[in-house]
Amino acid sequence: MRNRMLIRSLVSSSVPCTRNFSGTAPPPRQVLKTGDTLRQTRIFTNEDVTEYSKASHDSNPLHFDSEFARNAGFEDRLVHGMLVAALFPRIIASHFPGAVYVSQSLHYKSPVYVGDAVVGEVQATNIRENKSRYIVKFLTRCFKNDKLLVIDGEAVAILPNLAAEKVNVVD
Amino acid sequence: MRNRMLIRSLVSSSVPCTRNFSGTAPPPRQVLKTGDTLRQTRIFTNEDVTEYSKASHDSNPLHFDSEFARNAGFEDRLVHGMLVAALFPRIIASHFPGAVYVSQSLHYKSPVYVGDAVVGEVQATNIRENKSRYIVKFLTRCFKNDKLLVIDGEAVAILPNLAAEKVNVVD
Repeated sequence: MRNRMLIRSLVSSSVPCTRNFSGTAPPPRQVLKTGDTLRQTRIFTNEDVTEYSKASHDSNPLHFDSEFARNAGFEDRLVHGMLVAALFPRIIASHFPGAVYVSQSLHYKSPVYVGDAVVGEVQATNIRENKSRYIVKFLTRCFKNDKLLVIDGEAVAILPNLAAEKVNVVD
Repeated sequence: MRNRMLIRSLVSSSVPCTRNFSGTAPPPRQVLKTGDTLRQTRIFTNEDVTEYSKASHDSNPLHFDSEFARNAGFEDRLVHGMLVAALFPRIIASHFPGAVYVSQSLHYKSPVYVGDAVVGEVQATNIRENKSRYIVKFLTRCFKNDKLLVIDGEAVAILPNLAAEKVNVVD
């Protein structure tokens, strides 16, 4: 009960980070505020492309046939754009389990190839409380090779609370 | 060579449908024109949700925990929105292999549950030729229970040609 009150207090005061030193305390939580950015990095493998294709039934030859992809002007076969974009709901849901997606826009700027390390970033640009939940607008972007923009867009999600469960997961 | 010329002729004249009666002819192709709608239906299973979660690393409890989903106001656990939305590039790429996605907007209007039959629809609203390729804007929508709008949005894709490989796949 004390912990729940502590979290509520943090939410209302928007303190960016805190620790609870009680022996049975949950791990420290960071409370989301406008301007905060959450990031996760993922390297896409052949297996990822195969697995995503099975799940999505998307068998565009651009993803499976290197020669076809090169003839279409790419360096090699592409990782599915929607698989790369899946970084955004994953980042949001891993920090805020129970997040419900309202909308997402996606502008594909550069191709992603197998082996590319892609950094997904979601930055809170607007937070609005509504019926004890939080409607949050995020700037959503993916980069590779440090600064090369891969996907640009925006998302709106409803978060059950603003206390993040974990931050900056890399795999 | 004759077939390629035939297709080019069809593309430039925008004849909606034709047949080639030569013994070695490819199957008849329908040429995309503004206003045309392509549809595919998919029933999402437990296995689809599990497989997509593995591919996307998205483990939001809304997709795996019925009680959690009900407590959040849903009837049961949800199919991932991005998995449902993956119908759009799949429909486009299955008709036009080699299609390259430029953009997609997604507005989630109603939840999709395991077992729901979802009809994905992409309707060409603008077609523009550019350097021997075709930049096509699509209205992209998913429905369930006949008329219930699940996802609304738009996509832009670059198609290598306008002659569709197949139509109206259902699975």
